[in-house]
Amino acid sequence: MKRKSLEDDVCATARSLDVIGDWWSLLIVRDVLGGIVRFSELQRHLGVAKNILTARLKTLVDGGILELTPASDGSAYNEYVATKKGRALLPVLVALAQWGSEYLFDKDETCNVPVDSTRERPLKKLKLVAQDGRELTLADVLIAPRPKRTKRASAG
Amino acid sequence: MKRKSLEDDVCATARSLDVIGDWWSLLIVRDVLGGIVRFSELQRHLGVAKNILTARLKTLVDGGILELTPASDGSAYNEYVATKKGRALLPVLVALAQWGSEYLFDKDETCNVPVDSTRERPLKKLKLVAQDGRELTLADVLIAPRPKRTKRASAG
Repeated sequence: MKRKSLEDDVCATARSLDVIGDWWSLLIVRDVLGGIVRFSELQRHLGVAKNILTARLKTLVDGGILELTPASDGSAYNEYVATKKGRALLPVLVALAQWGSEYLFDKDETCNVPVDSTRERPLKKLKLVAQDGRELTLADVLIAPRPKRTKRASAG
Repeated sequence: MKRKSLEDDVCATARSLDVIGDWWSLLIVRDVLGGIVRFSELQRHLGVAKNILTARLKTLVDGGILELTPASDGSAYNEYVATKKGRALLPVLVALAQWGSEYLFDKDETCNVPVDSTRERPLKKLKLVAQDGRELTLADVLIAPRPKRTKRASAG
């Protein structure tokens, strides 16, 4: 699929998707944040072809999202670690997990979502909040798909 | 690219990406939520080939994220509107926009992010909060990439 480059787009969502808007890329970030940090482990866990994993990891390293470091156990392996920029993707992963758990799972299905490490319970649902503290619904948010923000989000 | 299907994955993030983890799909949802609702407008705004747009819109409609309705102005055009499930993707778009605006723009660049419609100011940064109200950092969150949650998120 030919891709239009969004790397210079004024929309912050579009520019983000240009960097991490790939199915594998976000799953790799999820795994690395979750402690799966070696190439062979990632390959096994994701069930992805080596050439695809290699390419996606290179993009993530080039994009400053992951770094390659010597193994923490002193072995000869290298490990991927998330940079600050990479760790900052956690809210994106949480937002995706919350949406998925609400809309894509039957009640009786096992559903893994990020949990609070102390209580091992799912996080609270993310809230959209204005600078002055008001909680916002979709109807209160302008999505700004155009340079001039003249369009209104469809009411929730 | 051959895709491994994640539609039955226990990880809610993976299953979400199976449905909307495509560059165009989220941009289409962004535009529809932002008021760009006709095929021709979407095609022009996104700069995407008609066949790709047709396929992605079909996937989004089949997935219950968008619906096709008669035009709101009574004309012969059809319009896409987001369902409840589609509107619930707003936190994902906000999380992406906040990440992008922080890490992918220079200070002097125009950067569009979703804004509060009353004040036209960007939203507050999304917070990760435990069920008991504690604000969480990455170090406090288990990402749960495996069915058994034994892995720890790398410390922030």
